[in-house]
Amino acid sequence: MDRPIGVIDSGVGGLTVLHELKRQLPKERFIYLGDTLRCPYGSKSDQEVQQYTWEMVHYLIQFDIKVLVVACNTATALVLDQLKENLSIPVIGVIEPGARAAIKSTETNHVAIIGTENTVNSQAYDLALRNIKPNINTTSVSCPEFVPLIESGRFVESDAIDVVERSLASIKEVYDIDTLILGCTHYPIIQPLIEQVVGDQMTVLSSAIETGSEVSTVLTFYNLHQSQTVDETSLEPVILTTGSLHVFERIKEEIFQLKSASLKQISLI
Amino acid sequence: MDRPIGVIDSGVGGLTVLHELKRQLPKERFIYLGDTLRCPYGSKSDQEVQQYTWEMVHYLIQFDIKVLVVACNTATALVLDQLKENLSIPVIGVIEPGARAAIKSTETNHVAIIGTENTVNSQAYDLALRNIKPNINTTSVSCPEFVPLIESGRFVESDAIDVVERSLASIKEVYDIDTLILGCTHYPIIQPLIEQVVGDQMTVLSSAIETGSEVSTVLTFYNLHQSQTVDETSLEPVILTTGSLHVFERIKEEIFQLKSASLKQISLI
Repeated sequence: MDRPIGVIDSGVGGLTVLHELKRQLPKERFIYLGDTLRCPYGSKSDQEVQQYTWEMVHYLIQFDIKVLVVACNTATALVLDQLKENLSIPVIGVIEPGARAAIKSTETNHVAIIGTENTVNSQAYDLALRNIKPNINTTSVSCPEFVPLIESGRFVESDAIDVVERSLASIKEVYDIDTLILGCTHYPIIQPLIEQVVGDQMTVLSSAIETGSEVSTVLTFYNLHQSQTVDETSLEPVILTTGSLHVFERIKEEIFQLKSASLKQISLI
Repeated sequence: MDRPIGVIDSGVGGLTVLHELKRQLPKERFIYLGDTLRCPYGSKSDQEVQQYTWEMVHYLIQFDIKVLVVACNTATALVLDQLKENLSIPVIGVIEPGARAAIKSTETNHVAIIGTENTVNSQAYDLALRNIKPNINTTSVSCPEFVPLIESGRFVESDAIDVVERSLASIKEVYDIDTLILGCTHYPIIQPLIEQVVGDQMTVLSSAIETGSEVSTVLTFYNLHQSQTVDETSLEPVILTTGSLHVFERIKEEIFQLKSASLKQISLI
């Protein structure tokens, strides 16, 4: 059983999930595809997001992936059910793991979700949370400026904090929110800024850590853990992007120490 | 889909898991069976543990349970594979969730496990950890005095700290252990004492929290979440024991605020 785990995202954001997957499942092989050319998905039409997601999935299926991780909240919100119905391998999104993490964390029973416009409008987190805990309170706010900020690499500049302050102002006004879900896999890249803005009153959760253990659980239940001992060098993740290699190169090295990953540009069109 | 989730344990220890299951899955119905009469399982023969566990399972199957949670590390170590092979419902033990939680937590890559003699001798945690992360370091110590201490209710008395000090002395000597798995579901009941003894250098993990999210994940994957909105009063967990009601009554109320649970003595023999 030497098949890789496939990970798809609209761009670099899913590297936060890949990083956790590698940390929690160091024996596994990973192949990652980020559709940076057409990023952000968060303000595209449903039909476009569906089409782009399926194009990524068809590309990765060539590599005989054993599990598909949809490391993009927008694609999870809009396409996960379709993928689960039509693929014969287990498919794991990031919304249910994020919802489960929030249910574990909240004591006030009031959770805030920030994400792209599409994710927030889909109410996918609200549904996932209420499906498990019907009486939970939620407040959702879209932050359309975050993904362009991160994909451009300008998130270390001084005006980035102003963008974050402005975007989260309405959440800070609600007194009893104790848990904030980063409902977009790009956002952990600016998590220190977000934590600085919301302060100690909220626990900031990324879906990435919980998605890591959910994938581990699914590998156990479907008996899909890598069984062979493989050569460490063959375990470098393969990272593919439809866009520029520049930001990928920087984020994978600076933030995730994925120095040894092989990075390649591909075309889906 | 109004079927309950079955939870079995050798005694009161699994109430730590039931508590987390109820917290993370408030819509679900639970039926718990603790075999206090024959507790502890930790020093019984493999054959006895298998027989007793199957007797509990057969008793709970009458209630048409949709998932079985083996909230006992000893029974998980010795009987989980058999149960998974022979039952048509998903079966979740506590060892793999505990192992996953430790892999998420450790930074030094050295994890200690404390449990009953049977659990430690089975090396079930070592195997579960290495199956996911081959190069992880483990140190295991059995604490045969803990379960009798807890089941007797004497764990608040002053000599309890001496028992804990003595039992954990060898673990405290290992400088790079940063994560301690409570490899017995009884142990969270004395978690404050254990944390006091090991100090800040170790994160003390119970399997209970992670087992809660693992059951939630399995309900999602098998499409088994409770779909009806049910009357809150019908959601009181049913707690059955083969032994004395006294310690159960005290622990369920004092520690878990399970005041509304119905408690009943039954016989398996």
